[in-house]
Amino acid sequence: MHTIQIPVRYQETDMMGIVYHANYLVYLEMARTELLRQLGVEYKDMEEAGFVSPVTNVSVDYKKSVTYGDTVHVRVWVDSYSKVRTVYGYELTDQNGHLVGSAKTTHVVVKRGDFKPIRLDREFPEWHDMYMRVMSPVL
Amino acid sequence: MHTIQIPVRYQETDMMGIVYHANYLVYLEMARTELLRQLGVEYKDMEEAGFVSPVTNVSVDYKKSVTYGDTVHVRVWVDSYSKVRTVYGYELTDQNGHLVGSAKTTHVVVKRGDFKPIRLDREFPEWHDMYMRVMSPVL
Amino acid sequence: MHTIQIPVRYQETDMMGIVYHANYLVYLEMARTELLRQLGVEYKDMEEAGFVSPVTNVSVDYKKSVTYGDTVHVRVWVDSYSKVRTVYGYELTDQNGHLVGSAKTTHVVVKRGDFKPIRLDREFPEWHDMYMRVMSPVL
Amino acid sequence: MHTIQIPVRYQETDMMGIVYHANYLVYLEMARTELLRQLGVEYKDMEEAGFVSPVTNVSVDYKKSVTYGDTVHVRVWVDSYSKVRTVYGYELTDQNGHLVGSAKTTHVVVKRGDFKPIRLDREFPEWHDMYMRVMSPVL
Repeated sequence: MHTIQIPVRYQETDMMGIVYHANYLVYLEMARTELLRQLGVEYKDMEEAGFVSPVTNVSVDYKKSVTYGDTVHVRVWVDSYSKVRTVYGYELTDQNGHLVGSAKTTHVVVKRGDFKPIRLDREFPEWHDMYMRVMSPVL
Repeated sequence: MHTIQIPVRYQETDMMGIVYHANYLVYLEMARTELLRQLGVEYKDMEEAGFVSPVTNVSVDYKKSVTYGDTVHVRVWVDSYSKVRTVYGYELTDQNGHLVGSAKTTHVVVKRGDFKPIRLDREFPEWHDMYMRVMSPVL
Repeated sequence: MHTIQIPVRYQETDMMGIVYHANYLVYLEMARTELLRQLGVEYKDMEEAGFVSPVTNVSVDYKKSVTYGDTVHVRVWVDSYSKVRTVYGYELTDQNGHLVGSAKTTHVVVKRGDFKPIRLDREFPEWHDMYMRVMSPVL
Repeated sequence: MHTIQIPVRYQETDMMGIVYHANYLVYLEMARTELLRQLGVEYKDMEEAGFVSPVTNVSVDYKKSVTYGDTVHVRVWVDSYSKVRTVYGYELTDQNGHLVGSAKTTHVVVKRGDFKPIRLDREFPEWHDMYMRVMSPVL
């Protein structure tokens, strides 16, 4: 589990006066890649090895709006893992601890070009071990 | 039900070589507001009356990537309606008819400022009638 | 010379209630690639041949704001061309013909990877001929 | 003068594999508002007082591309000030000190609604004094 803090950018707001809802997906990604870094792997390295990890599902519940001047805290964790599929969970709060929203995203890893999902235990054993460790009951 | 066609913008791609996943939410919104226009109401008018309609939930399944040069066809319909809450359904295909993804988004209408949900049948009877008409069994 | 029409997307606005200034660069790009298409070349083909055409300079004058509900008309032309460098000129107006802004962008073509500028007359003679034709005094 | 560091977001890249050029304008804005904060004023307060500060001109020279994994350092300063118009200067470098680009942006302050430029010395004396101080020869 890991938490990052993201000060809202002016550009992220819309004429409703709040952060445009699609930008939450950017916040989630930033939290997710930072979690991976904390767990010892770099998404950048995966891409340099010729693989990419597209999102296959996104689900977001919006509870409370945030705007320019606010700081969004994104807590992220590995929710489930199955060799080909990883689900991350997220909880977003503002600088006052109020719940902003929650989310889940699902990801596969594919070869750049053919976009066919691969098995992490075969192609990226280091990532597989990390996910298994994170999912273990002692945590 | 309504379908719009959106040629992918170069800006919408990322270094994975495909449309960045958050941009699908922008496509959904474009389809949704165009559907409303076809049904006789303008989202712009609602905002000018001092109300906004934030998203409370988004759920997207990504099936096939699209990229610059592709055209995304977004089919949208009112999935359910309950005076305070409207759910839209979406199906995205590419120019060859291949399924790109599907989605649902949920919306409320709130007063600008206090962000408290209002009842559409009281504040926007025209919108309420339109939703009821669209949801009726004869359609 | 070519003109495209771009209805403003809600997502392009910010909390100032107008189109966020960086989005004008997206509009310029859309006009530019459409001009190229009208002139018989496709930017997509250049990328598929292993080359990209980054922007080396952008200059925009903002005259009048636009917002959701407006349609931006972008007129674009080749302002100058020198085998390694192409300058495009732009004029933006709204649906009522009011001047929204004007801009210039400068571009080179580079090999994907090393980002060294190439000469268009050697690598892309079709593009070179097109630019020469467009810049010729008879036009 | 002030410098901020911005780690590149994946979302900011495009299929060219580098940060999309329009995103530099977002980086400039982040540096600019942070400079103001360091100088004792908050852009947020100006908006809450019913004024906004739109960009009237942007000019960017792109020297070297950056991508995901890089950190952009943006140095910003007040280049000139004239009661109604403020020009900021910027220099962008990467984490290795290589020049990424340079820029200037020009801003006015207008009343929300009518978009007529106001004089800072009359409406925002605190901002005026700050700009005069920053522009003084002793700095």
